[in-house]
Amino acid sequence: MELVNVALTETIRVLLEEKKYNTLRDILETMKPYDIASVFEELQDEKMPILFRILPKELAAETFVEMDDKTQEFLIHGFSDSELKEVVDELFVDDAVDLIEEMPANVVKRILRQADKDMRKQINELLKYPEDSAGSIMTTEFIVLRPDMTAEMAIKRIRRTGVDKETIYTCYVTDENIKLIGITTVKDLLLADDNDIVKDLMEENVIAVTTLDDQEQVAQMFSNYNFLALPVVDNENRMVGIVTIDDAIDVIQEEATEDIEKMAAVLPSDKPYMKTSVWGIYKKRIPWLLILMLSATFTSIIISSFEGALASVIVLSSFIPMITGSGGNAGSQSSVSVIRALSLGEIEFKNIFTVLWKELRVSFFCGLTLAAANFVKLMIFDLHSSSNAFWIALVVSLTLLGTIMMAKIVGGSLPLLAGKLGFDPAVMANPLITTVCDSLSLLIYFAVATSILHI
Amino acid sequence: MELVNVALTETIRVLLEEKKYNTLRDILETMKPYDIASVFEELQDEKMPILFRILPKELAAETFVEMDDKTQEFLIHGFSDSELKEVVDELFVDDAVDLIEEMPANVVKRILRQADKDMRKQINELLKYPEDSAGSIMTTEFIVLRPDMTAEMAIKRIRRTGVDKETIYTCYVTDENIKLIGITTVKDLLLADDNDIVKDLMEENVIAVTTLDDQEQVAQMFSNYNFLALPVVDNENRMVGIVTIDDAIDVIQEEATEDIEKMAAVLPSDKPYMKTSVWGIYKKRIPWLLILMLSATFTSIIISSFEGALASVIVLSSFIPMITGSGGNAGSQSSVSVIRALSLGEIEFKNIFTVLWKELRVSFFCGLTLAAANFVKLMIFDLHSSSNAFWIALVVSLTLLGTIMMAKIVGGSLPLLAGKLGFDPAVMANPLITTVCDSLSLLIYFAVATSILHI
Repeated sequence: MELVNVALTETIRVLLEEKKYNTLRDILETMKPYDIASVFEELQDEKMPILFRILPKELAAETFVEMDDKTQEFLIHGFSDSELKEVVDELFVDDAVDLIEEMPANVVKRILRQADKDMRKQINELLKYPEDSAGSIMTTEFIVLRPDMTAEMAIKRIRRTGVDKETIYTCYVTDENIKLIGITTVKDLLLADDNDIVKDLMEENVIAVTTLDDQEQVAQMFSNYNFLALPVVDNENRMVGIVTIDDAIDVIQEEATEDIEKMAAVLPSDKPYMKTSVWGIYKKRIPWLLILMLSATFTSIIISSFEGALASVIVLSSFIPMITGSGGNAGSQSSVSVIRALSLGEIEFKNIFTVLWKELRVSFFCGLTLAAANFVKLMIFDLHSSSNAFWIALVVSLTLLGTIMMAKIVGGSLPLLAGKLGFDPAVMANPLITTVCDSLSLLIYFAVATSILHI
Repeated sequence: MELVNVALTETIRVLLEEKKYNTLRDILETMKPYDIASVFEELQDEKMPILFRILPKELAAETFVEMDDKTQEFLIHGFSDSELKEVVDELFVDDAVDLIEEMPANVVKRILRQADKDMRKQINELLKYPEDSAGSIMTTEFIVLRPDMTAEMAIKRIRRTGVDKETIYTCYVTDENIKLIGITTVKDLLLADDNDIVKDLMEENVIAVTTLDDQEQVAQMFSNYNFLALPVVDNENRMVGIVTIDDAIDVIQEEATEDIEKMAAVLPSDKPYMKTSVWGIYKKRIPWLLILMLSATFTSIIISSFEGALASVIVLSSFIPMITGSGGNAGSQSSVSVIRALSLGEIEFKNIFTVLWKELRVSFFCGLTLAAANFVKLMIFDLHSSSNAFWIALVVSLTLLGTIMMAKIVGGSLPLLAGKLGFDPAVMANPLITTVCDSLSLLIYFAVATSILHI
């Protein structure tokens, strides 16, 4: 459903060779911008600018926004100045900012030269906001109403000024100082009587964000409150922009991808997997692999210092991967639950004792189950020929109980502590917790073994 | 921002005790449904039905939808039949269906008895669709227009019929057999001339989904195409409902949470962490912990069968956690990249060779880097006193190179194979891949060690 047919790209390539431009236009006009963009990305052909010129103006701009930066840059290099101006004129300001952030400096200059003065000013304003802030994803085009208008006047105003606005459905009511005093919707205006006053129709308890609010929190608010757009105000409650739901969805997807990547010890990337070069992927993966490999030195040291004990009961070493593995799995289960709950705004640092009490009970029951299952398995299958089978099985099972409880407490609390200290909780996930749990579980193992087996 | 102040809940509890109902109404009317619902959930008090009766009717219904099922059930038990009817009448059909799916049988009966005949019919229709299908998240209330209407007539029709529709902004143009022939938006209708004909304003290349399409794919389409609503049709292209963007966002969040949980070997849950009981969490976590613990038997067997080799060069056993750990980390990096790309619709099974070729090159460079770093570290720090330091360092470093390459190939291909075979790719993530990689990396280790050290 999502991937455009490769066959279609081939058809278009052939039609382009044969210069059948009318047929091409007929095909492209039936397609959505996202799908046309996919065709361009698959095409990667010097004839792309010709194909782009075939598109009707508005569709061309909408398609351009959906393309990856490589394709955009290639196209811009093929554009004449007037062609570039046509595309830039059709862009919404926030899309223009996204484009500029991706392009190299010489292309940025060309784009800004083609933008009209007003747009250039708005673009420069938006570029000032820090990455990941509400300001960086907002658009400055929105519908403004006055409180004393009638519904009929309001609708007329929307019809007159709505054409170049990204959304017209949420309207912002401001006073003479552009301070936000209420919001209303086209639905409310349409369903009201013509003579109703905007002031009486508007919702005065407005939820607004400020330009510097974190984009992840802003996106979460869309999910909680079912908004289509959210007003962005400055410190004096003056309207400066709106965040629309399509941008919020992109943020939600990006943040989820970032969390997942961090949990798997990959540095977050802003490019899709298939479009990242081998070298790009290498750079995202190697730092954590190196750090984690070096931190495994601790486990090596612990094992080495118990070489004597291991040599006297050699079977003990065969259970090391099972114990560290179970500890790692138990720890990452807890850390991932807590990290996700933090991301979705369900818990905060102040809930740490509730979380720990919960994890303590869950880990006790999980540990008990694993220990019991393991004890039975060891006695029946693995150790039936050993002389001190019972004691070894006891050591391994007690270690499991201790390890699972330790791992779940560590896994449940580290992300909360990290968040409190200003680090990203997701970085505390899987691999780092696994490394900590590996060392601690080995210490538990050898402590239990030496005291029970007297080695 | 998201969590309602605990202090506010306390204030409300006290005001409720003191029966200051007017003050309570003033407070609640300034709040959003999501936040009022949070207050109810924190309150968990026998006076909840009294507090609920204070809310204006529409706000009451909107708040009710946002509550967790425990609170909803508690409230319903306190409702008189006529109170229940008032709430049910205000619900959108899809919210009513969500409610019914969560409630026990006796409550469901009471709800259905209060719903009017038409709504009961629609609810029963929707209940038939399988979980996770487009049909299960759609609503059956939407605006229908005819192709020969003028824009003015269309707006009039929307004003007349829009009041109980979840969204009015996307309108569906159907022929006399209710077949979907186009869509148009309130924006297009408002910006058009009064006498323009709907047929000329509508977009005929409609993207629609069918009732049985997977909700995850449907949600992904919102993100690709920037829709506010998506039409759902039956096999004959007849309109049966729409999916709105707020439900799509919920699906996106749920699916990301599910993927993350599966990657951490937790069975997916539909309840937030803080609202799940200890027993509920235990049940989600223990199956995979048991399976993974038992599958670690393989690593134990492999280690046991090389007991002789380990006993002769005892230092070899101290590197086992480092080697299996690095393999596990490298494998989960790859699997998670591939799983996320699959979820976002960026790759399919047919891309397997592109993925493998990419992973092969990335893994070669990652493996080489780790092996070199490790060789230097072993020669300088760990083994400087050993007699055959060079050969042991060589064994460990070559093993690392082989392990990383094996892990990334396994991690990159297993999720794709799983998806092809009809399993969920996410289940193939982290823990399972780690277990497979653990065994394989030990086999590589001992093979390299025995051949180079002749043990």
